[in-house]
Amino acid sequence: MPKFFYPVVICKTVQVKILDTTLRDGEQTPGVSLSVEQKVMIAEALDNLGVDIIEAGTAIASEGDFQAIKEISQRGLNAEICSFARIKKEDIDAAADANADSIFMVAPSSDIHINAKFPGKSKEYVIEKSIEAIEYAKERGLIVEFGAEDASRADLNFVIELFKRAQEAKADRITFADTVGVLSPEKMEETVRKIKAEVKLPLAIHCHDDFGLATANTIFGIKAGAEEFHGTVNGLGERAGNAAIEEVVIALEYLYGIKTKIRKEKLYNTSKLVEKLSRVVVPPNKPIVGDNAFTHESGIHTSALFRDFKSYEPISPEVVGRKRVIVLGKHAGRASVEAIMNELGYKATPEQMKEILARIKEIGDKGKRVTDADVRTIIETVLQIKREKKVKLEDLAIFSGKNVMPMASVKLRINGQERIEAAVGLGPVDAAINAIRRAIKEFADIKLVSYHVDAITGGTDALVDVVVQLKKDNKIVTARGARTDIIMASVEAFIEGLNMLF
Amino acid sequence: MPKFFYPVVICKTVQVKILDTTLRDGEQTPGVSLSVEQKVMIAEALDNLGVDIIEAGTAIASEGDFQAIKEISQRGLNAEICSFARIKKEDIDAAADANADSIFMVAPSSDIHINAKFPGKSKEYVIEKSIEAIEYAKERGLIVEFGAEDASRADLNFVIELFKRAQEAKADRITFADTVGVLSPEKMEETVRKIKAEVKLPLAIHCHDDFGLATANTIFGIKAGAEEFHGTVNGLGERAGNAAIEEVVIALEYLYGIKTKIRKEKLYNTSKLVEKLSRVVVPPNKPIVGDNAFTHESGIHTSALFRDFKSYEPISPEVVGRKRVIVLGKHAGRASVEAIMNELGYKATPEQMKEILARIKEIGDKGKRVTDADVRTIIETVLQIKREKKVKLEDLAIFSGKNVMPMASVKLRINGQERIEAAVGLGPVDAAINAIRRAIKEFADIKLVSYHVDAITGGTDALVDVVVQLKKDNKIVTARGARTDIIMASVEAFIEGLNMLF
Repeated sequence: MPKFFYPVVICKTVQVKILDTTLRDGEQTPGVSLSVEQKVMIAEALDNLGVDIIEAGTAIASEGDFQAIKEISQRGLNAEICSFARIKKEDIDAAADANADSIFMVAPSSDIHINAKFPGKSKEYVIEKSIEAIEYAKERGLIVEFGAEDASRADLNFVIELFKRAQEAKADRITFADTVGVLSPEKMEETVRKIKAEVKLPLAIHCHDDFGLATANTIFGIKAGAEEFHGTVNGLGERAGNAAIEEVVIALEYLYGIKTKIRKEKLYNTSKLVEKLSRVVVPPNKPIVGDNAFTHESGIHTSALFRDFKSYEPISPEVVGRKRVIVLGKHAGRASVEAIMNELGYKATPEQMKEILARIKEIGDKGKRVTDADVRTIIETVLQIKREKKVKLEDLAIFSGKNVMPMASVKLRINGQERIEAAVGLGPVDAAINAIRRAIKEFADIKLVSYHVDAITGGTDALVDVVVQLKKDNKIVTARGARTDIIMASVEAFIEGLNMLF
Repeated sequence: MPKFFYPVVICKTVQVKILDTTLRDGEQTPGVSLSVEQKVMIAEALDNLGVDIIEAGTAIASEGDFQAIKEISQRGLNAEICSFARIKKEDIDAAADANADSIFMVAPSSDIHINAKFPGKSKEYVIEKSIEAIEYAKERGLIVEFGAEDASRADLNFVIELFKRAQEAKADRITFADTVGVLSPEKMEETVRKIKAEVKLPLAIHCHDDFGLATANTIFGIKAGAEEFHGTVNGLGERAGNAAIEEVVIALEYLYGIKTKIRKEKLYNTSKLVEKLSRVVVPPNKPIVGDNAFTHESGIHTSALFRDFKSYEPISPEVVGRKRVIVLGKHAGRASVEAIMNELGYKATPEQMKEILARIKEIGDKGKRVTDADVRTIIETVLQIKREKKVKLEDLAIFSGKNVMPMASVKLRINGQERIEAAVGLGPVDAAINAIRRAIKEFADIKLVSYHVDAITGGTDALVDVVVQLKKDNKIVTARGARTDIIMASVEAFIEGLNMLF
């Protein structure tokens, strides 16, 4: 049972439905394009996560969208499969032909949107077209979720009128869309109450995050009686994106006692899958799913954490399928350095400990990140522990180019013994790492778990920051290389990591 | 004058103060370390932006923090310069010695924090220590903003008692800290009202974004009477970060009619500076400051945009110092492709246009990003416009390694003429680009505006995505290269860009 820190309102609402639009509004994110296979993978993950409705694309938009909806519809998922549509016959036909269960069909409702989409036409024209479209969609056997686009900038009386006429035309659900994210939570609450008072159909809300209020607006809409909300994994979507499902779900449950069908422990892996396939980076400070959400660095804090980790955690990371991470850094306190020293079997006098902490802070003050390897080096320097580096890089030569198979030769010294090797690779970095691997083949059980290069921005002479994770048996170490030369930075990180393992 | 889309509440509050903690709570973000020089740069930018108080670090934490506060205090900025402190004499002394104007001094207020920081001590002990500390800080001439840490998980009666005693001890301001981000907007509103009813001192609120509610919580606290809020640029900060200043400022002004002293048109550049120095990436879907916040791709939408760009924009990008970006992509509609064709001076028949749109969608459906260069290639293929590539790469050879000056030789064909050149560089990519630049030296006015490599994650054989921006006179073009070999990807993007310019 979750612990409610602050149950604010005992809401009438106890459970809400979720329409996930990662594959439609999320896929409209500039720069994002998903293949049919990728969409199927995400749909399966979403079904597994427990969303009620998967908006899988816009059947009319492209052959790929059409195929994706068709494929996903054939998978026998638990979720209802939905296609986006405009109030146009061809959009409805495409959705039905792709075997979608339902359509999320929108009509413009604000003057600005009506003018942009039906220049010179009246509001009554929009209503008529909507009714025609709803009736046709029902004929084609589709569940119809009918949405008023840009409803937050429209005359609410018109929106309610539109919804009433949609109800008469036998739409199944209605959606109030804050298309450009200009609602405040209070206004959302007031609006939903007014709509619920006049229209019987289940109401969904669709919020955008332009002012950073998508999560709060969604919650306030639900509190006021909306039965469904739209959201995306990682808050993907046009401009500032849609409401992030992971934030709404956790806040609803922990702060309001409102449940969803989401399997919370799958939130993190779903986020990672969507990040990888959409190539839209999740920033470290993203709530729930960001790298730092359950990471603790500051010296003072981690010290308190060792006494009681709840001090700086709103919920347990396990709830959302994650693990707590303690990071050493410039703010590393005594307790966290001691934990690392215990692991290495070292002991320090109080004076030595003071010196270690001072040196860690010194690196940080220079504006550099402090890595595990840095901390270990400092500890060993202060304790005067001489640790001969087992693996030394003596020489490295790289040759690559156009019409050239990238190749690398290395001379390593391992435990004093010289090793010379060469290898080819898919690129110069790959060739260099392959050559090193060959040279240390007796340690074939070392795995490169991850290879990460921070985004490089600026010029071709910018510093390149490479972090590798190596694994041997159950031990994982991370090491870093930073050079203007990406090959040397990668090799440096790899060798540093090997030395941490041996 | 801003247009109020939805003035919800006519608030009593008309203007609020901002304490910016980018340099303290923001700098505690795991992985972030700023040098003294970098902190001074950010402090100057914050002052320029118009924040009232700059929390510049924790004077006691390290020599670097101390020096940074001292340096910033000497700059004669308009903002009040503040140091973080615990209720400890040494913390107060360090802040005063660093010439800070003020301290933000926190005492634990929840049982969990009191136990973690003062094991076995009572609440009365915390009050006594707080009073001692406040009185000592006043003696040392500091403005004292006294904060209750983890107040949202504490007994509110105790927090109010603590604040009252702080008032008697002559603290200047008080702060209610939602340290782990577990408040809901309603609870924040209720809490602030209760505090304001009993304590006269100006009240600040300090919100974290663990549940994605920091912006809404901050707004609700202000609406209820708080006179100041804490925030960071880009929402930096521990875990999910603090309230993002840019979001709170814009939402307050546009949705609630509450002003700050922020020069909104400087928000974007300040965000970029902090992103660069902190190395914490701002995701494209971050409200206000993310790359996509004012970017439009979808075909349907951009088509409407050309009629009225307000259709999909909550505010004008110029308000926050930005420009609208129209991106061609898989969702590119007829109108946006036509705009590009006009620029190139091309005309297409309806059939050709249909074919162009279909081919653009096809690339997208394969899960690839569609770049400017892709769209141009498609247009020219369909229109059967043969455009001889002016610059062709015939040969490239790279040599680099350890103890080797990275060097590259190229053979280019420019307008049919052969050019052979070689150059060294700071790394193999740099050497290759230098060699190409040399070979085309008559076009010395071409500038590499930006060079961007997407973060590489996975293995050393992962696809590397390079995007370059080149500028000649007033024309800027972007081009991309994607290979497993970072050198070839970079060169490909560069040559592609050159061909777009010539």
